[in-house]
Amino acid sequence: MLTLYTAPGSCSRASHIALEESGLAFEARLVDFAQGDQRRPEFLAINPKGRVPALVTDQGVLTESPAILAYIAALAPQGLLAPVEPFALARMQAFNLYLASTVHVAHAHGRRASRWSDDAAAQASMAAKVAQNMRDCFTLIEADLARNGDSDWVMGDAYSVADPYLFTFTGWLEGDGVDVAEFPYVRAHYDRMGRRPAVVRALQAEQTRAA
Amino acid sequence: MLTLYTAPGSCSRASHIALEESGLAFEARLVDFAQGDQRRPEFLAINPKGRVPALVTDQGVLTESPAILAYIAALAPQGLLAPVEPFALARMQAFNLYLASTVHVAHAHGRRASRWSDDAAAQASMAAKVAQNMRDCFTLIEADLARNGDSDWVMGDAYSVADPYLFTFTGWLEGDGVDVAEFPYVRAHYDRMGRRPAVVRALQAEQTRAA
Repeated sequence: MLTLYTAPGSCSRASHIALEESGLAFEARLVDFAQGDQRRPEFLAINPKGRVPALVTDQGVLTESPAILAYIAALAPQGLLAPVEPFALARMQAFNLYLASTVHVAHAHGRRASRWSDDAAAQASMAAKVAQNMRDCFTLIEADLARNGDSDWVMGDAYSVADPYLFTFTGWLEGDGVDVAEFPYVRAHYDRMGRRPAVVRALQAEQTRAA
Repeated sequence: MLTLYTAPGSCSRASHIALEESGLAFEARLVDFAQGDQRRPEFLAINPKGRVPALVTDQGVLTESPAILAYIAALAPQGLLAPVEPFALARMQAFNLYLASTVHVAHAHGRRASRWSDDAAAQASMAAKVAQNMRDCFTLIEADLARNGDSDWVMGDAYSVADPYLFTFTGWLEGDGVDVAEFPYVRAHYDRMGRRPAVVRALQAEQTRAA
């Protein structure tokens, strides 16, 4: 049994969608950031970093989205959620790593700037640069998708866990002051994702738990 | 043939060490940050992100340290540089992801704060918090290593690409104003790594290229 700790709208949405796609048995549990759940001892015992997603498995706890996503893909039927060939798999991981270590970080300087400075003016200055940095990131991502031409997914014709991960970040653009219409390939990908039954189920579950 | 683009002392050191450990044929090429090589069209054609490491393979270019490290491990003899069992492999990736998306980011707010704010005072304010954030990160890492007890490596008794990656970050602590002596397990790991012939070779090659 797999238990995913998740918060609505956070990057844990990608892992939730991947589990919905996988056919694996799982339970999703809400970590209510507004109530400070992520800082409570019960949750820190699961993930000392106080972040979501955290995936509890029979073998122990996994953290960090790209690691969780690749693990879900490894448990799913071969080829369903990740390429099997080593170089293609590494390219998928490189895409997800860019989202985790550059795009997520760019986004976090909006509401989480206090991680990197205690000074209110500095935090405001960081927040003011979020839109520009997110636009720069998505300019690179748009070029990646454009190179795929008419293919539907991040890795080309085959769907993979890179798709729900990108979908999650694309959903943050409006709040970061960036119009997704600037990036036609990204927007088409977002719309295409939104029609997948697994995505619909994951978003409905987020709303139910958050209510 | 594999060609690794690297800069001395940067996070590309980990991939360089992993290649030395792997027994694979490779060439390491210097990207001279002091000369602005990473912004030249020749390099941007290889990696549009303008960062190292970048690994050029017969199948294309790979970026992002944890993706490159896992790929090198996949090409190396099975079990030499990464666990084979899926959960253990995912745990290794989660460790490397934390280094990439939290620890590297904490460090980068020292000399690369201009990524997140154009304001000089804000940049100084971020730099002033680097030591505290690096200390917080390494407190978690020290606890991870302590849980391994007398085992030599990040993943326990088996060496993996998580080891050169941690070694690279530990080497940044002094410059970030943190005394590695605060973290006895991390320091012992650093010293142990420094005695490996592959590490000695990689560090010597960095000095030769930088000279």
